[in-house]
Amino acid sequence: MRQFIVLGHDVPTTPDFPLDALPSEAGRLDVLCRCVNSAFFLSHDLRDDVRVSLVLQDDVTITFEGSDLHRLNPDERSTAALVRKALEHKDEAIGHMAAESSPGVSISRKDFATTLSEAADGGTVVQLHQDGDPIVEREPPANPVFVLSDHHDFTDEEAALLSEQADARVSLSPRALHADHAITVAHNYLDTDGFSEY
Amino acid sequence: MRQFIVLGHDVPTTPDFPLDALPSEAGRLDVLCRCVNSAFFLSHDLRDDVRVSLVLQDDVTITFEGSDLHRLNPDERSTAALVRKALEHKDEAIGHMAAESSPGVSISRKDFATTLSEAADGGTVVQLHQDGDPIVEREPPANPVFVLSDHHDFTDEEAALLSEQADARVSLSPRALHADHAITVAHNYLDTDGFSEY
Repeated sequence: MRQFIVLGHDVPTTPDFPLDALPSEAGRLDVLCRCVNSAFFLSHDLRDDVRVSLVLQDDVTITFEGSDLHRLNPDERSTAALVRKALEHKDEAIGHMAAESSPGVSISRKDFATTLSEAADGGTVVQLHQDGDPIVEREPPANPVFVLSDHHDFTDEEAALLSEQADARVSLSPRALHADHAITVAHNYLDTDGFSEY
Repeated sequence: MRQFIVLGHDVPTTPDFPLDALPSEAGRLDVLCRCVNSAFFLSHDLRDDVRVSLVLQDDVTITFEGSDLHRLNPDERSTAALVRKALEHKDEAIGHMAAESSPGVSISRKDFATTLSEAADGGTVVQLHQDGDPIVEREPPANPVFVLSDHHDFTDEEAALLSEQADARVSLSPRALHADHAITVAHNYLDTDGFSEY
């Protein structure tokens, strides 16, 4: 299983935002929607061995589970609608129990530390960093966990948590990439078994 | 210069479509908007050595010129607004002369054959194909031209034109990728000088 955790620092944790102003009125939810797209879509297919966890304001986590997903469309607006629907179900999420809001999409009251620690259990946490080892030099792990941030850098606290849990620190590119592009590159590295199988 | 030509088979060539229904009422313009995003965006930066040509219905070409672009935002809706604005200026494009509709965005009455042939002049046309050579085995060209299609396959005529002009036929991945993801992988291949420099 490939896991991607994406931190949305400004995305509202209540569903009162319009779908036609994602950059300005939904805390750049468009960034997270593009990450969901990159994580799941293949041409005429969905990747079912993928889980994406969107951590909003270090307060709630919305999880997209590839094996159960239906009705995911590639455009930002429809993915944002799934996120908004999940937020409408927040009150049904008690403790760390998740509430499913649509097939394969659920919401839970988990902060970043909890979501990361659960993903790390059985997974290899890969920290993406421009000063990391070139990813081409690393053997692809069986169950990688990639952690990405939205348009903001990680906070010091988030970066410390990630460094603590990370099993590897790698660089995907000499250029600084958007989170959704980083996900695409990570998939390509895994799909090609380290840029060797085509 | 890196060039990407993307064919939009169903995108309207008149500006009478709503921005809040791109998949259903704008011929999957959302696909093309994501291609523009992948082609230009770096984290907190735009790639200025890139040109994207969107060919709509083999009738008009909308060109995004990295060196002149301002006001490009990463979300689909705002890019679609730039396309719609370009279509509003279609009548100003006479013959093959382009009309600029916003900084770095212009429209011209060029079909695919014309746009491809202009790009091929001084550029290396790279055909993406699952049966092509693994891209990792090829030296990155100085001025590559990648040609991609939207959610439809190339028509027989388009495929024939492309094969005729192509200098190389390469595979980016063992999986069939969306066009925007293919652009991201192509950039990563070029940025890393063939997955060797990080």
